[in-house]
Amino acid sequence: MQRTLISETIQKTGQPVKVCGWVHVRRDHGKIIFIDLRDRSGILQCVISPGAKNYGELKKIRSQWVLEIAGTVKNRPAKLINPGLETGKIELNVKEIKILSEVEELLIDISLDDMNLHIETLLDYRNLTIRNEKVGAIFKVYAEVLKAYVNFMRSRGFLEIKTPKILSGATEGGANFFKIKYFDRDAFLAQSPQFFKQAGVGAFERVFEIGSVFRAEPHFTSRHINEFVGLDAEMGFIDGPDDVMDELEETMKYVLSEVQKNCKKELEIYGAKVNIPKKFPRLKLADAVDILKKEFKKEIEGIDIDPEGERLICEWAKKEHRSDFIFLTNYPWDIRPMYIMPNPDDPKETFGFDLLYRGIELASGGQRIHDYNQLVENMKKKKLNPDDFKYYLQIFKYGMPPHGGWGLGSERIVQKILGLKNVKEAILFPRDVKRLAP
Amino acid sequence: MQRTLISETIQKTGQPVKVCGWVHVRRDHGKIIFIDLRDRSGILQCVISPGAKNYGELKKIRSQWVLEIAGTVKNRPAKLINPGLETGKIELNVKEIKILSEVEELLIDISLDDMNLHIETLLDYRNLTIRNEKVGAIFKVYAEVLKAYVNFMRSRGFLEIKTPKILSGATEGGANFFKIKYFDRDAFLAQSPQFFKQAGVGAFERVFEIGSVFRAEPHFTSRHINEFVGLDAEMGFIDGPDDVMDELEETMKYVLSEVQKNCKKELEIYGAKVNIPKKFPRLKLADAVDILKKEFKKEIEGIDIDPEGERLICEWAKKEHRSDFIFLTNYPWDIRPMYIMPNPDDPKETFGFDLLYRGIELASGGQRIHDYNQLVENMKKKKLNPDDFKYYLQIFKYGMPPHGGWGLGSERIVQKILGLKNVKEAILFPRDVKRLAP
Repeated sequence: MQRTLISETIQKTGQPVKVCGWVHVRRDHGKIIFIDLRDRSGILQCVISPGAKNYGELKKIRSQWVLEIAGTVKNRPAKLINPGLETGKIELNVKEIKILSEVEELLIDISLDDMNLHIETLLDYRNLTIRNEKVGAIFKVYAEVLKAYVNFMRSRGFLEIKTPKILSGATEGGANFFKIKYFDRDAFLAQSPQFFKQAGVGAFERVFEIGSVFRAEPHFTSRHINEFVGLDAEMGFIDGPDDVMDELEETMKYVLSEVQKNCKKELEIYGAKVNIPKKFPRLKLADAVDILKKEFKKEIEGIDIDPEGERLICEWAKKEHRSDFIFLTNYPWDIRPMYIMPNPDDPKETFGFDLLYRGIELASGGQRIHDYNQLVENMKKKKLNPDDFKYYLQIFKYGMPPHGGWGLGSERIVQKILGLKNVKEAILFPRDVKRLAP
Repeated sequence: MQRTLISETIQKTGQPVKVCGWVHVRRDHGKIIFIDLRDRSGILQCVISPGAKNYGELKKIRSQWVLEIAGTVKNRPAKLINPGLETGKIELNVKEIKILSEVEELLIDISLDDMNLHIETLLDYRNLTIRNEKVGAIFKVYAEVLKAYVNFMRSRGFLEIKTPKILSGATEGGANFFKIKYFDRDAFLAQSPQFFKQAGVGAFERVFEIGSVFRAEPHFTSRHINEFVGLDAEMGFIDGPDDVMDELEETMKYVLSEVQKNCKKELEIYGAKVNIPKKFPRLKLADAVDILKKEFKKEIEGIDIDPEGERLICEWAKKEHRSDFIFLTNYPWDIRPMYIMPNPDDPKETFGFDLLYRGIELASGGQRIHDYNQLVENMKKKKLNPDDFKYYLQIFKYGMPPHGGWGLGSERIVQKILGLKNVKEAILFPRDVKRLAP
């Protein structure tokens, strides 16, 4: 007999079916054993009476055992209907059970609505904890974000590309690279697909990439991870950084609207609401610093705002503009990479920006320099040696349009949509300074 | 004025438009200058007469310069219509040109239909050569393969996951791992997402991943690369390896049919035909060895067939079954990893298989062991220490259904669809033993 998914049993009242899944919970009522069976589509109550085949054997079944159950779908008596369950009007009268896999004692009860585990326990037992419905919901939202991102990018004429993660040099001239032994020489793990997506603009005008990003930053925070999945994009023939922000704004609106539409259950589990502002406010970084001083009595050391500043300026955007998002623009030249276009009206500033969402930086982007000579000059000003960037500079010898783009952190989107305390919760198997397993 | 894409100019006869792009070719006819302008959507003939603004300046424009052109779309005289061009019935009467980017002397003429470059030249100048139409077509097919793969996987209930590429140990117990310096310790780059996707089955039953795969194999062939993009999938509640092969077969049929439908122009450029067999033949490896002996007089050393054997058995599949694909099944236990299910009827064999396409191995897959004790035993038989696989073994303590899956090489699919000689041609910026740049 073909397997029936649990969500499809609703239409099969009176019919014999075969279902497969895990024992979610198991209850004894005298000689009757109730098993809530869980598969990828839902949960179904299965009733084992002493008449079932090998009844004696079936009594040993416990939580999380994997079963294949043959039986007949029956309507439940009216007073036993469970309105909280999709299959709450029916149950399965068990005829025969095949045990596919048994389980030792479990240390964690994953059938709980909320396991309330310490983050380290949650991650140490990741192979088990991702089976919990609330934890699993995170990864359904995550998959929806990936899907919405690619679909939107394609609809806007962006070509999906894949670029290498092993590099011959520390591309952007910064630190924070992981070093690899590559046959008989050293190599580095990509900190971003920046150079390659710019090359992509030269060929295809608009490109996007979903790929691994590696950062050797020794941070111990709830916002940092050392390996994540970046949602990158780069577009040619722009008139200025606002064109890039427009595109990113539309992208985020689409991604959120898709999550809102297709992840109702998952949002509900987290009591999360998706708010999509009509327009994301755009504020110069310098003006943000002023607002922090005036409205929040917060003094900024240096020229960039710190995590508390990011949180406060998001509060301000929510209050003043009813927006969960805010663009901070015109980042200072000193703290942006050599490829970001300086503002011709004020060379201390650049056409670089950040996008903040619910208190944290979600994306970094900007217009890039597209002129070969200007780029060489900017490298020199940054005390970088253009000879170290031979292949990158090649791109600009062949004719490059004005262009710009962004890098988005996919995990932070999910973290902030669902209100997770730690970004690591939004990653199946996160890597941080201390954690490389499971 | 808003930019008009070149493909959209066809509907704008008589109207003023602004177009942007690269000079594809430039021809002088006395005082008239013809420019074929190329953008991501097509090529448009632009006519510069001495009446154009700054005509004197415009005479210096050369190949690959980046331009923004304002002008009026006109019908061409009947005898000048170019049926080979989508915009062949129209041209642009240039009013004004803004030069966005100039270009030095180019070493390679990328406007040629076929640049006929040596592979090393093609890759050394990759930032330029990907701008050639024929080369670019490869990456349009590549993007279509990615799109078709994810769309099909989703339609079959697979959840998209992303798993880490930095590992604490050399997972599969083999060699060929790249070593990383990870803060104060050593780590390794993932050779496959095998362990994580199996964990994913425990939570979501069906998962897939598109991600970077790293192989430290010192090969110098047209089939090998050291970093590629894997299309992985893993599915629970199977009845045997045939269920996995069925799913992979349907996936490949869908991917090919989408390429056939959506990449007509790209296939034409390569004179490539997509053949979709009704059914992929399945042959035991041992029987393949016999066929090679009898029909091709080829003796096999050892128990696996070599690249020439793969090529010949594909010839056989084409002749006998009219199929570009063939599954080789029942791989010997000796040459399959510890997680592949041994055949209970013949423990020298496994439920592992390969999928071959047009002469090369495209995918490797099989049913996995899902029982904890059997897995520990199999590790020991393979002279592996189960203590080294503590986290992996965790998965099997929590109840795992019978499951299996595959790893597909995305680049080889594209290589073989288009008939490219070298798999590196199907990668934007390939990495091999010698090449880490650009």
